[in-house]
Amino acid sequence: MINLTFNHEHLADFLSDEELLIMQDEVSVCHDMLINKTGKGNDFLGWVDLPAEIDEALLSSIEEDARKIREIAEVFVVIGIGGSYLGARAVIEALNHPFAGMMNSGKKSPVVIYAGNSISQDYHASLLELLSEKDYAVAVISKSGTTTEPAVAFRILKAHLEKKYGKESARERIISITDKSRGALKKLSTDEGYKTYVIPDDVGGRFSVLTPVGLLPIAVAGYDIRQLVAGAKAMREACIITPSILDNPASRYAAIRNSLYRMGKQVEILVNYEPSLQYITEWWKQLYGESEGKEGEGIFPAGVGFTTDLHSMGQYIQDGQRMIFETVITVDSPAKMLNIPHDNADLDGMNFIAGKSLNEVNQMATLGTVLAHIDGDVPNLGISLPKLNEETIGELLYFFEFACGLSGYILGVNPFDQPGVEAYKKNMFALLGKPGYEKESDAIRARINGE
Amino acid sequence: MINLTFNHEHLADFLSDEELLIMQDEVSVCHDMLINKTGKGNDFLGWVDLPAEIDEALLSSIEEDARKIREIAEVFVVIGIGGSYLGARAVIEALNHPFAGMMNSGKKSPVVIYAGNSISQDYHASLLELLSEKDYAVAVISKSGTTTEPAVAFRILKAHLEKKYGKESARERIISITDKSRGALKKLSTDEGYKTYVIPDDVGGRFSVLTPVGLLPIAVAGYDIRQLVAGAKAMREACIITPSILDNPASRYAAIRNSLYRMGKQVEILVNYEPSLQYITEWWKQLYGESEGKEGEGIFPAGVGFTTDLHSMGQYIQDGQRMIFETVITVDSPAKMLNIPHDNADLDGMNFIAGKSLNEVNQMATLGTVLAHIDGDVPNLGISLPKLNEETIGELLYFFEFACGLSGYILGVNPFDQPGVEAYKKNMFALLGKPGYEKESDAIRARINGE
Repeated sequence: MINLTFNHEHLADFLSDEELLIMQDEVSVCHDMLINKTGKGNDFLGWVDLPAEIDEALLSSIEEDARKIREIAEVFVVIGIGGSYLGARAVIEALNHPFAGMMNSGKKSPVVIYAGNSISQDYHASLLELLSEKDYAVAVISKSGTTTEPAVAFRILKAHLEKKYGKESARERIISITDKSRGALKKLSTDEGYKTYVIPDDVGGRFSVLTPVGLLPIAVAGYDIRQLVAGAKAMREACIITPSILDNPASRYAAIRNSLYRMGKQVEILVNYEPSLQYITEWWKQLYGESEGKEGEGIFPAGVGFTTDLHSMGQYIQDGQRMIFETVITVDSPAKMLNIPHDNADLDGMNFIAGKSLNEVNQMATLGTVLAHIDGDVPNLGISLPKLNEETIGELLYFFEFACGLSGYILGVNPFDQPGVEAYKKNMFALLGKPGYEKESDAIRARINGE
Repeated sequence: MINLTFNHEHLADFLSDEELLIMQDEVSVCHDMLINKTGKGNDFLGWVDLPAEIDEALLSSIEEDARKIREIAEVFVVIGIGGSYLGARAVIEALNHPFAGMMNSGKKSPVVIYAGNSISQDYHASLLELLSEKDYAVAVISKSGTTTEPAVAFRILKAHLEKKYGKESARERIISITDKSRGALKKLSTDEGYKTYVIPDDVGGRFSVLTPVGLLPIAVAGYDIRQLVAGAKAMREACIITPSILDNPASRYAAIRNSLYRMGKQVEILVNYEPSLQYITEWWKQLYGESEGKEGEGIFPAGVGFTTDLHSMGQYIQDGQRMIFETVITVDSPAKMLNIPHDNADLDGMNFIAGKSLNEVNQMATLGTVLAHIDGDVPNLGISLPKLNEETIGELLYFFEFACGLSGYILGVNPFDQPGVEAYKKNMFALLGKPGYEKESDAIRARINGE
């Protein structure tokens, strides 16, 4: 049984079920490629069976390390970029108190902070100021150990930790998550004696949230990784059992978005009505953008938070270029209670909703917006979760992953590579004079000088 | 003299200066409409002369109120949505310590937190938990006082403040920013005796950052509003003196983005290389999305933070649908120092940049990325600031505002209205049974029930 529901009840004006079902054969072929690992990029399909295969020993080990870190750290720094931090951040921020770092009372978990996900000097210098005041531990996450951003950040934080705690104690505060046998971070971890977790060979960064890459930080933040995995496992069963567009929500989402794309809808906006879901959107943007944005193709992934952005992007979505569709994530029940107070003067005219919960108003805003945007010729899809917890988020993540694999295959690309990510790195290394880039270095300098 | 430079040196492959200058007549007409207030929406052009007209008494009053709030509040809650919070948040977060709420040392300013910019029940219930632990004050910002999100949030926080401090003391902790004479919030403020600032009639929300809407929260956060205004004033002079595409950076930006739009570039991505600029991007998305996204027209505004998102949206930008262009904001000099340490083992191979500042690497990443994206057929524009401070941010904000007015006129729309924002509100009120919406209520219920 899964809790997530995917609905396309408002799609009929744009695409009928009959038109949608025309895609069933295509979807079935792609579903088969994914399940039987016969399609492009099939050496990176480890994520498909991951939720069913995670073993007890790994989960226990992560939980035990998380427990130790929670005892010694007020701050937990996750060093990683792209898929090495977005999955953990998406889950943690969805469940965390929005003012976790400022609260005195309540659950005392380490505050998770991210580093090595940019090269900003001011950001990293400010981070060191904070870390000078706090007890902290670090996870360094990199398959190779040579990606510039996390490598630079880890150099800085390793030196800081060793100065603050001494080399021996610093060792106890560092966990590395990297390749099982190769690479700079693997060798460094062995040399230094760091506790190390493995990133499986057949799981790419953007699909890695259910490996230690995501699970360790999520456990340190105090969340139940077994429930997260259980949610993903339940969704996996719903996704692999049938390719049917009507019965499999991932097949339906993949078919609809490709249909809309073929009809000229070039931009998909992922919408939420909870600020805590911002990083679910960022994670989704990488998942779909990096999987489908290639060979001159792919839906451009964008995100908004409502009702917040109804007062910024709302005008555009209602009336701008008609090349967009929306996928709206809603959560039925909030975790906390809050009602709108009655006011005798009623100058603001809000007494007609006094006594209602904020959530009731948020739900009517959601429905009102969906109808308004449909009237504005913006197709709307809906994903709803009964509440936000580890289990439902596990379902949501796997749903998006499986639909992404299907959708990329339907589009005709390899959804599991990212050749375009190298282009800027090559130029950057050439400009910085990295050994081995001498020829590129000469070429790029000549280009800049207009020669 | 202005510090900001806008450059289009990499545009030649897509659009030559000769092709660009073909637009000069169009730009000149629109520039004239803006300066002489003869175009559409000309009753909302108060922002054009605002930086030159702000008087000393207003600035002093804001500074004095900010000083009082800084003495009594650890947290300052800004209640507002859309343009009522985005400008303040953009400036404050650009200049703030990224971990301000968690630091023990350093400058002790109130932490600015936002409310009434969503209807999330969990967010606002969590905010109350925080506010129970902190001394706080509130700014409530709304022209009418009846916009649902801020009205609901203010009801809740007013009750909370009065319970925590008593009615008399609560009064001293509330400042309202609203219409000069009309509306619910104006009346409430008069009845309750709140200190009140005026939102000018002829300045719309998304252009209001240099009114008390933006200036008060920015001053409370500890920043120099006179320098902010001075920067905007200098940029205003550069913008109004000439319509020339070659000499006026706002004319150039407006001309280029309309040229690219006509060539089929339907999405503009605003890029930064500093995480602190995230809300400059959010402010910009409202400014351009709400001004231009109408009548089925308008460039879709999107944002990324690099190098962070080179590992998520980078693949799409390099290789996806060729309908995008980028405008890249860079900051030459960071505020803090940080160099990459040397490491004897050099397992990560980073010793070739050891001793360099992070900023030097960030700059080479920027240049390398611009060149890579140009090679990927993505036109690139550049905005550079020598450093990030109140003055340069003032320039940047006014630059974007003036270019937006011009750009909307070139597009042929009224850049100063937002008719589409009402559609969801009408549905929401109908669904919630607001008095006066009885007919709409019946209609929408019939629609939902499929009648």
